[in-house]
Amino acid sequence: MTFREVCLSGEYRVAVLGATGVVGQEMVKVLEERNFPVASLRLLATERSAGKELEFRGEAVKIEKAGSSSFRNIDIALFSAGSAASRKFAPLAVKAGAVVIDNSSAFRMDNQVPLVVPEVNSQEIAGHNGIIANPNCSTIQLVVVLKPLLDKAGLQRVIVSTYQSVSGTGKDAVRELQSQTGALLRHRKAHRNIYPHQIAFNIIPHIGDFEDSGYTMEEMKMVHETRKILDMPDLAITATTARVPVFIGHTESVYVETVSVIPLKKLILLLLKSPGIKLVDDTANNKYPLPIMTEIYDEVLVGRIRRDLSIETGLNMWIVANNLRKGAALNAVQIAELLPQDKADRPEEK
Amino acid sequence: MTFREVCLSGEYRVAVLGATGVVGQEMVKVLEERNFPVASLRLLATERSAGKELEFRGEAVKIEKAGSSSFRNIDIALFSAGSAASRKFAPLAVKAGAVVIDNSSAFRMDNQVPLVVPEVNSQEIAGHNGIIANPNCSTIQLVVVLKPLLDKAGLQRVIVSTYQSVSGTGKDAVRELQSQTGALLRHRKAHRNIYPHQIAFNIIPHIGDFEDSGYTMEEMKMVHETRKILDMPDLAITATTARVPVFIGHTESVYVETVSVIPLKKLILLLLKSPGIKLVDDTANNKYPLPIMTEIYDEVLVGRIRRDLSIETGLNMWIVANNLRKGAALNAVQIAELLPQDKADRPEEK
Repeated sequence: MTFREVCLSGEYRVAVLGATGVVGQEMVKVLEERNFPVASLRLLATERSAGKELEFRGEAVKIEKAGSSSFRNIDIALFSAGSAASRKFAPLAVKAGAVVIDNSSAFRMDNQVPLVVPEVNSQEIAGHNGIIANPNCSTIQLVVVLKPLLDKAGLQRVIVSTYQSVSGTGKDAVRELQSQTGALLRHRKAHRNIYPHQIAFNIIPHIGDFEDSGYTMEEMKMVHETRKILDMPDLAITATTARVPVFIGHTESVYVETVSVIPLKKLILLLLKSPGIKLVDDTANNKYPLPIMTEIYDEVLVGRIRRDLSIETGLNMWIVANNLRKGAALNAVQIAELLPQDKADRPEEK
Repeated sequence: MTFREVCLSGEYRVAVLGATGVVGQEMVKVLEERNFPVASLRLLATERSAGKELEFRGEAVKIEKAGSSSFRNIDIALFSAGSAASRKFAPLAVKAGAVVIDNSSAFRMDNQVPLVVPEVNSQEIAGHNGIIANPNCSTIQLVVVLKPLLDKAGLQRVIVSTYQSVSGTGKDAVRELQSQTGALLRHRKAHRNIYPHQIAFNIIPHIGDFEDSGYTMEEMKMVHETRKILDMPDLAITATTARVPVFIGHTESVYVETVSVIPLKKLILLLLKSPGIKLVDDTANNKYPLPIMTEIYDEVLVGRIRRDLSIETGLNMWIVANNLRKGAALNAVQIAELLPQDKADRPEEK
């Protein structure tokens, strides 16, 4: 069966690489929740996880060890196993005929690879050569909100400070926050293994390695990826990223200076009708985005919208999203959902 | 004994109003730690706390109910019992001859009242009329760092996002974070009483009431107080303040645009020699300011200093300080330490 035939049949043979990770598990959940047309599901992981099972549509699916032949007869491969695994397996998967949607940073800045947030630049999907990159979690929720602003009023500069949850680091980090918190509440020592400092009841301004510039990799991802997704290579954007003792949900305090003034009421209306956004901005009733809300909402939550009282084109916003879902698994599946229309007529897939 | 005579004797009769609060208790500790020349110490609180005891220099001091005659024979009264108590008792204390150093927001924006951070504007102390205001915790740590920058390179604009600990709210908030965290770790419901939302494993962008502008009182305190302390009534400054599940230590992600470019090395040297600042900026060894460090350090901790790669005059910094000490009790006692030189020759105090 060719990719084209599969596309026309409307059912995909899907593989998830890194299926036991926090994002991988979420990918399987999202495929089911969104009724993604899955003909078959292959779950791949390292040898350590092989033999375990995950449930999909009420059936147990056995996890297989990823290998060079794992992507035979796969149409769509969702990758979330880290950059090294992506570099190793993506070329094999593409060669086997699959389209790879990669959640790692391996190919994001590759000129040949589209970096896609469906609400922002879905048109880029058509140009792919077998790999489509899923942006960094903190970038995704930012650009979903920046895009309508850019289109309406232009972007002069962006200054972001983040409050990122530990699930962004993975399962072991979630356990570390749990165990440290429990220990400290019992007046015991908080042992650390994943983070360079205690994360319980603390804030760590260090996500990813430090570069010579003094910025972390995470901060520079936000800069480079935002520029690529918005197609603004010279956008003035700077970020400070910090890890906070929160399990799920990334928060961003975002300062935006637009080119032209956009009245606040117009901005609210604009965001209300923009895709993927849920406005939570009713301070009179103590309503504003909170990380714990992301257990319920898949949208990017925006609130605390207000004008910089000293600069007419300046705006402050508070942006929260589920880093495992919109920041990773959901965005990847949304890309997959856009594949058929774009891909069915492309002759090179077979 | 007149204030002048007491000043010349070098010993002060000190009162602490709000002695059982988190800041009040810290005031008593700081007075002892810094060997403040205390001739006598009177601890004042509401009726609820009267009769309890606090230790000072190895002796138990009984807490008295604050009343209209509580400030007789008091030279220095440190207030930390909220704005209502300050408005009620400050005039009485001043009339009785005491100098009030007030940690509430009651008088901070009063033109007749100096708003003082000793490292920044100690010269203002001389102009007091009996009351000196202690700024808001998040303002203090900010201006200690902004002042040398202002003097060296001028300030064009300031954009701040905060990560504020629950002790800034008080003892009940500390207990709420403890109990909610414990409950959630045991998969029980997190009851809330102090904050409008769960604070454990969450971030709440809401400190103080909301104003019509959409800003909170805390955010506007940072704007107004910073302008007053730096004597820059038109400074372009905007803030987003958030409560985080941290017990002690406020964190600020600060973006500063200076008027002239200051080379990064010069800035580091400048901050190294500036009063009240401890540089913690060695990313190669994972060293940067953390809230848990404020259990040890009284200085304002600054790190993650780096140039905005897209704007030559833009700088990012990460500023952390102990909100109960430098942000409140310590700053108040530092003001008291500067009183004698300034006040002994002023004839109006008696």
